[in-house]
Amino acid sequence: MRNVTKDNITDVFMGYLGEDMNPRLREVMSSLVRHLHSFAREVNLTHEEWNTGIAFLEKAGEISDAERHEFVLLSDVLGLSSLVDMLHSTPEGTSSSVLGPFHITGSPPLAIGGDMRKDFDAPVLLAQGIVKDPSGKPIKGATLDLWQTAPNGLYSSQDPDQDTYSFHGLQTTGADGRYAFTSVKPVEYTVPSDGPVGDILRACGRHPWRPSHLHFIVEAEGYRPLVTEVFPEDDPYLDRDTVFGVREDLVMQYQDMPAGSFPESGFELSGKVDDAYLKVDFDLILVPK
Amino acid sequence: MRNVTKDNITDVFMGYLGEDMNPRLREVMSSLVRHLHSFAREVNLTHEEWNTGIAFLEKAGEISDAERHEFVLLSDVLGLSSLVDMLHSTPEGTSSSVLGPFHITGSPPLAIGGDMRKDFDAPVLLAQGIVKDPSGKPIKGATLDLWQTAPNGLYSSQDPDQDTYSFHGLQTTGADGRYAFTSVKPVEYTVPSDGPVGDILRACGRHPWRPSHLHFIVEAEGYRPLVTEVFPEDDPYLDRDTVFGVREDLVMQYQDMPAGSFPESGFELSGKVDDAYLKVDFDLILVPK
Repeated sequence: MRNVTKDNITDVFMGYLGEDMNPRLREVMSSLVRHLHSFAREVNLTHEEWNTGIAFLEKAGEISDAERHEFVLLSDVLGLSSLVDMLHSTPEGTSSSVLGPFHITGSPPLAIGGDMRKDFDAPVLLAQGIVKDPSGKPIKGATLDLWQTAPNGLYSSQDPDQDTYSFHGLQTTGADGRYAFTSVKPVEYTVPSDGPVGDILRACGRHPWRPSHLHFIVEAEGYRPLVTEVFPEDDPYLDRDTVFGVREDLVMQYQDMPAGSFPESGFELSGKVDDAYLKVDFDLILVPK
Repeated sequence: MRNVTKDNITDVFMGYLGEDMNPRLREVMSSLVRHLHSFAREVNLTHEEWNTGIAFLEKAGEISDAERHEFVLLSDVLGLSSLVDMLHSTPEGTSSSVLGPFHITGSPPLAIGGDMRKDFDAPVLLAQGIVKDPSGKPIKGATLDLWQTAPNGLYSSQDPDQDTYSFHGLQTTGADGRYAFTSVKPVEYTVPSDGPVGDILRACGRHPWRPSHLHFIVEAEGYRPLVTEVFPEDDPYLDRDTVFGVREDLVMQYQDMPAGSFPESGFELSGKVDDAYLKVDFDLILVPK
């Protein structure tokens, strides 16, 4: 294939692939390169635009480190991360949503009914629900890895004034499958926009905001792990989440509860409240493996 | 668009694009994201594969610096660089080919007939031709930026034993449009394969070799710049250049010339040779702007 042309180069590429290569890798690379070449032909990509693209990738590489994952953010704002999530979620379970870049491992145990508010001055949110299977049967021993922003819109890893595990907790369900904790209402925030991905957002006339949300990773033996979020139905960014994370079944009403109504419950609510508070009920349905 | 699904996410992305954004950027981003999403759907991309892709991009970023351009190399081995070249070359001129990562600016002047061999012990190559327009009219004052590997297969920037501008030169044509220089026959070599792009080549059962070539950037007032290469027709890697650079009109016979036949010429050939030598005639056709 001495004479490579703009019309045959995609086939020439396929001809270079080794006969013994992993069949799945062959499938993925073939599709990737077909789409890459089709993109370049479709827009008649210029050298200058190619240079801009290469410079973007190099800048994204430069700004990336163990804490800053610019390529993940790129995938998030282009909708790829959410698409991969949705390709592998099943309709009988709670929808999955983006993990985001702020999850950290090793969160401290949080008793059922425990409090994540610490000393922050913000209205109390009681979040509660049942972890169950698609038939409605509660799941005992499910672990919920929970994290969210503080009232200032920052995750602990972004904020030198917070402890490492501020607004992080690990809760394990009992026989009734119930989880519950008191916290504060998380707030909407922007994805990091001081790097090349921020430049793309601005150039495309897009904002960097995400609607407020609580993060969950729910795991139980015999079930598929679930990475998800819950959103309040009155959030102003619900319809334009910059990372495409909103799913219909993840949008919940955060109910305004009057003063004096804070529930007496079978377990101890360590963050007892006399004033008005917010309450969200959010059941989590896990799908068997 | 509160309910993002795997089926509507591409349209949701398009809906996020600002009305005032640059129309060309809208065209490029729309096509890029349509193809990216189609790729993910087509292969049903898994979380694990997505992770592999993100880790690849992060590794490519880590290994990149002012001298090492792993993202350019990625574009080269996927055929994108060559495709962009070919999308913008015109049939009436000499084909363009990849610039490659080893071009450096500021090469020293090389008189017509000058010698790039230095002290390397290898058979002499006389390279010569006419820079002309599509009608065959010689172009005066065209500059040729020339570079190639030493006989050890290394460019000067890769080889601490070579001077910065070893096997680099800048030649300017006279009224007859002629260029000529003596050098050594360049040798086939491998693209850098110690990074993540090398891992891809190996996983795909591909080799990292390029056929041997001389590089040219030819510029003249009123003409489109030409970035190209010339290949010898007996090179073993001609049919499987790992960066897809070979075009039919860039493959030339390197003629074996007998001892004592080295040409007397109108200009001084500073690298005069009594022994047998190689000769390649390669005219360069520039297209008016």
